[in-house]
Amino acid sequence: MAERIAGPEIERLIQLLARLPGLGPRSARRAALHLIRKREELLGPLAEAMRVAKDRIVTCSVCGNIDTSDPCSICADPRRDASVIVAVETVGDLWALERAGVLSATYHVLGGALSPLDGIGPDDLNIAKLIGRVAEGGVKEVILAVNATVDGQTTAHFITELLGPCHVKCTRLAHGVPVGGELDYLDEGTLAAALRSRTDF
Amino acid sequence: MAERIAGPEIERLIQLLARLPGLGPRSARRAALHLIRKREELLGPLAEAMRVAKDRIVTCSVCGNIDTSDPCSICADPRRDASVIVAVETVGDLWALERAGVLSATYHVLGGALSPLDGIGPDDLNIAKLIGRVAEGGVKEVILAVNATVDGQTTAHFITELLGPCHVKCTRLAHGVPVGGELDYLDEGTLAAALRSRTDF
Repeated sequence: MAERIAGPEIERLIQLLARLPGLGPRSARRAALHLIRKREELLGPLAEAMRVAKDRIVTCSVCGNIDTSDPCSICADPRRDASVIVAVETVGDLWALERAGVLSATYHVLGGALSPLDGIGPDDLNIAKLIGRVAEGGVKEVILAVNATVDGQTTAHFITELLGPCHVKCTRLAHGVPVGGELDYLDEGTLAAALRSRTDF
Repeated sequence: MAERIAGPEIERLIQLLARLPGLGPRSARRAALHLIRKREELLGPLAEAMRVAKDRIVTCSVCGNIDTSDPCSICADPRRDASVIVAVETVGDLWALERAGVLSATYHVLGGALSPLDGIGPDDLNIAKLIGRVAEGGVKEVILAVNATVDGQTTAHFITELLGPCHVKCTRLAHGVPVGGELDYLDEGTLAAALRSRTDF
């Protein structure tokens, strides 16, 4: 039905925009109109930025991060503490931890979590390379910064067992009340964890 | 702060994506990661579709629609009834009416509505060209399909007055209960209009 409204060029733009997460068919149409209205300031630069991203972005062969250089700028940064590796599920999680700005460690992007139901096993994740990095020596701690989901925690336990022979310290993120969070809206599991891990004033 | 998380190429992509309507900084990051993950199937084609759109889409000199040809495919279609002009505020409204598929008329995109508060006067809109099209003759009816807002209705009245000397029929969209709408959720104004314009079974 929608094919006859605008020319095929506009329809193709709308269809591709609708495949972005967070945009449906209606908001993709709004986005396309916005782009066409702002042809010079937005449509041109965005097309160019996408072309550059497509041509230049590579996956870091050390940690699995994405960047325009390999090894990525984090792995290549001599000020980073290479003795601490933060294992995360996705690049988005890596960015979130970088925004927190607490650590100056290196990362390892697993590419997801173990999920027997979805058929995701150890070989589908970037786990072997993590074990290899630790086995090479020089690593003191692996922080398993995976999601607090069943799949995430399963993955963390699996990796901890694999790292056993390496005698490296494995840690995980603390559970507790989110900063700014209201107790009334929190689930019992989080409240129980926050109570158990309570700290002195 | 965000500049140091990823390379400048990725940051630029995220910043430009965040300027799309419906995407904020967080969803722009998710969209960028999704694009980079689907480099071949989505990022490349979308960059190319944007480049094509930027190079080829023009505004129709007759009606103000956007298309890759001028006059646009609607104005150039001989099967369209050129004696009926549907005046709309935006190209998005034109698309919405085309999706309804009731009319086979031509359009005129005003480019917005009169809004004294926002400093939008008659000269900022594509009104003079509409009057010109009607004055040339051959037009029987102008349907003022503007939004049911104060600005939209003001614009409709303004255009109706300008068209007075042309002796053309000016009509507007019916007010009433939206199809599938529940009375309980409708405002009083809509219900009053629906009652006043009630029709026989």
